Amino acid sequence: MTATPTHLHPPVPVPVDDVVARAQRAFDVLPDLAPAVRAAALDAAAGALAEHADELIAVARDETGLLPARLAGELRRTRVQLGLFARVVEQGTHLDARVDEADPDFALGVPRDDLRRVMLPVGPVLVFAASNFPFAFSVAGGDTASALAAGCPVVVKAHPGHPRLSRRVADLVARALVEAGLPDAVLQLVEGQQTGVEVLRHPGIHAASFTGSVRAGRILTGVAASRPRPIPFFGELGSVNPVVVTADALSEGGDGLLRGYVTSVSGSAGQLCTKPGFLLVPEGSVVDPVIAQAASEVPEHRLLNAAIADGYVARRAAVLATDGVRVVHGGSVRRDDDGQAWVTPTFVAVSLATLRNHSDALLDEAFGPLSIVVEVPARTDLADVVAELFPGNLTSTVHRGAGEIGPHLDRLARVMARTSGRVLFRGWPTGVAVTPAMHHAGPWPATTTDATSVGTAAVGRFLRGVAFQGAPQELVPVPLRDDNPWNVPRSSSPAGESARW
Amino acid sequence: MTATPTHLHPPVPVPVDDVVARAQRAFDVLPDLAPAVRAAALDAAAGALAEHADELIAVARDETGLLPARLAGELRRTRVQLGLFARVVEQGTHLDARVDEADPDFALGVPRDDLRRVMLPVGPVLVFAASNFPFAFSVAGGDTASALAAGCPVVVKAHPGHPRLSRRVADLVARALVEAGLPDAVLQLVEGQQTGVEVLRHPGIHAASFTGSVRAGRILTGVAASRPRPIPFFGELGSVNPVVVTADALSEGGDGLLRGYVTSVSGSAGQLCTKPGFLLVPEGSVVDPVIAQAASEVPEHRLLNAAIADGYVARRAAVLATDGVRVVHGGSVRRDDDGQAWVTPTFVAVSLATLRNHSDALLDEAFGPLSIVVEVPARTDLADVVAELFPGNLTSTVHRGAGEIGPHLDRLARVMARTSGRVLFRGWPTGVAVTPAMHHAGPWPATTTDATSVGTAAVGRFLRGVAFQGAPQELVPVPLRDDNPWNVPRSSSPAGESARW
Repeated sequence: MTATPTHLHPPVPVPVDDVVARAQRAFDVLPDLAPAVRAAALDAAAGALAEHADELIAVARDETGLLPARLAGELRRTRVQLGLFARVVEQGTHLDARVDEADPDFALGVPRDDLRRVMLPVGPVLVFAASNFPFAFSVAGGDTASALAAGCPVVVKAHPGHPRLSRRVADLVARALVEAGLPDAVLQLVEGQQTGVEVLRHPGIHAASFTGSVRAGRILTGVAASRPRPIPFFGELGSVNPVVVTADALSEGGDGLLRGYVTSVSGSAGQLCTKPGFLLVPEGSVVDPVIAQAASEVPEHRLLNAAIADGYVARRAAVLATDGVRVVHGGSVRRDDDGQAWVTPTFVAVSLATLRNHSDALLDEAFGPLSIVVEVPARTDLADVVAELFPGNLTSTVHRGAGEIGPHLDRLARVMARTSGRVLFRGWPTGVAVTPAMHHAGPWPATTTDATSVGTAAVGRFLRGVAFQGAPQELVPVPLRDDNPWNVPRSSSPAGESARW
Repeated sequence: MTATPTHLHPPVPVPVDDVVARAQRAFDVLPDLAPAVRAAALDAAAGALAEHADELIAVARDETGLLPARLAGELRRTRVQLGLFARVVEQGTHLDARVDEADPDFALGVPRDDLRRVMLPVGPVLVFAASNFPFAFSVAGGDTASALAAGCPVVVKAHPGHPRLSRRVADLVARALVEAGLPDAVLQLVEGQQTGVEVLRHPGIHAASFTGSVRAGRILTGVAASRPRPIPFFGELGSVNPVVVTADALSEGGDGLLRGYVTSVSGSAGQLCTKPGFLLVPEGSVVDPVIAQAASEVPEHRLLNAAIADGYVARRAAVLATDGVRVVHGGSVRRDDDGQAWVTPTFVAVSLATLRNHSDALLDEAFGPLSIVVEVPARTDLADVVAELFPGNLTSTVHRGAGEIGPHLDRLARVMARTSGRVLFRGWPTGVAVTPAMHHAGPWPATTTDATSVGTAAVGRFLRGVAFQGAPQELVPVPLRDDNPWNVPRSSSPAGESARW
């Protein structure tokens, strides 16, 4: 029932209805602003983050336990992301503007009227912030940046794991956006789980995004779908990101490859949605010593919060208690008086048969620095294994020998492209580039839809097509006007073209 | 539990598992075929329809009661639609291929690997055929054409209203597609409601489309969402397509305008998803005589089938029994021994107050030739009326005077663009052009998602993004290969570009 308006710090409770009404008023203004103004506002938001980087990183460190270098990188990524979406707004390709000229001889035998289509913003958007990226998937993160780029005011539901940071970022960024010419309340912050659900149910909200657990994601997907008027719900839920290593790759890449694996699993204490949860190696490979050695060098790291610590402790115990699980490096969990957990990474190994027999216990995502090596018998079809056991992931990776090629890899790559949204042929899935060609989504339960939440295509989640037929110049959206003052790229179908169809 | 394979006529029951397995095998082949082959196959399908047009129209007429001229136009539209999607396949714009060059100095401070993204087909698709467009929204209709264009094999669940036509079209079109080089079972037909639900639940199906009632659509949306792995469900459910006529328009357009309204309501016996269900006119306008006269000239027309007849009879009775409803032209319903109904159009008028007071009885879509004139008091804000009473429609229309412009129309057009997917400023919403700029979707309950089912953008429903990172030339999809042998349009981000962000 309470919400935190921006520009107020500490938060003052206000009714959800007021928050959404303010977002709707902002929506009456935002889409009409020239792209240059909206792009400059996103740049200004990035600038505000840069100006207060030291202060923000210190607060984030205190609240999340993440290390300063990681937080500095994440803040840089968040700034770059705002800038990237500013360029998206300037370019206008995402508007997919189309003009069909009136055609008296249309192929259907009836005259065709002038028809123009453009992608318009869906309306006010609710963003559920994530715990594990206090900058990049939080108040001013990718969802907010892409929604604002689309022309949608944003209500962020703060993650309880970093409330002070959320308020401070909301304050700084909302102020920067408004000072740059965007309407008041273009970015608002609310707090509390119940408040988040109330906003999600509010008829004035037109789409929502979420990053979190499969359990919470299923519940919120249901809330969005069971509204009298359902809305799109873009959830990123769970992913175990299998990595397949061929015998050639292992014999060529050796220690370096396994050390890379340990680094990717351990970074940010394994609290990344693209952490490699499974490493598939040929049965008989000797990997334990290198993994154990590399893992033993990883310093203790705090998990994000007590709830995540509880979840990790339970998942780790379940994995370790499963028949047939061999401990490669046990790692550690140390709880403190506040319920926080300090951890070092845990690596175990299982046979493919064990993984199949105990798939319920082993295949769920472990959110934290735990990963499972799977020993795959010779002559096993890896494509079949991936299709069977890893059907819905953000990423899949295959490491092969230099020049190794053949039908087995061809099939594997094809299956990986069906079971995940990003297929890697070298490197590791953590460290997601924010670029035009990034795709961050995958079959259920990786995400609830195929729409990416990272990269420029993420703006598409918050747009909807509308066609205007026989419209006077005064009443069409600016990108469809004859004089095209915003210089939006457009495709057109001239009269007579339909004869080609 | 039964299904109808193509190439067999009359149908032989086969298990659903077999149907889906065949579709999956087709999916292993279809996406790799060169665009020229796939485009030629769609053209061949169009050719098969043209070659058998007379026979098909005769069957359709017998099964649906629709008139030959309308059916001939619809068949032409269906052919043109297949051809249009053939051109989409050739052009390749829908693949949205993106190439980010590797960038050693990426803005995030870490090297960026080569990353390439393309839209790939989602997998086998289930299409629920509609009753009211036996060609254009049925076996070889827009959903099938756009799914095939995307590279997805299609299982069509035949509408029981035209079983013989469905089988014959499936037979002809599947044969044409396969003879043109597409894999076996790229198009299959199943029959029966229970079979349709079983296919929808099958894990081998990756998306579904539907055109029908809100009630059935809600049930099927729930089935798709409650699968262990939910899939996208593109449903077109209900729309009343309000038309607003200003005083200027009425005084200038007069009789012609009202006659156009009657024609649009009566065409195909009102069984069109874009039929204008409401005409909003200024209170005090004299419209009854012209509407009644024009309506009286409309010949009797059979409704599609007995189930639709039952629904129409009930809706019409409910409207006529509502307090405050004035009959403009009563029209008629004549049932025959088979339960079929022969109808002439019914027009009624209500005050805005009556519509508000009896919104439950009056606002639901009446599927058939019934429309309601709404008398709107002077100085009523039409934008508010549309936002309040017509919040989710495929189309909205405003007829204004020549040169009439002003804030009232500006607000109205904006509200219409939020409450519907197509806004018309002249003409009538029936007669949907199949062109690049068409958009046929709208806020709930018009459609379950914002994705259009008509026009070239409809192909996007059956595509999903996948990114390939550090991929060897041999293992990326053809549109992403360096040599780009299919000449797919691509956008690229050169190394160093990120410094601009």
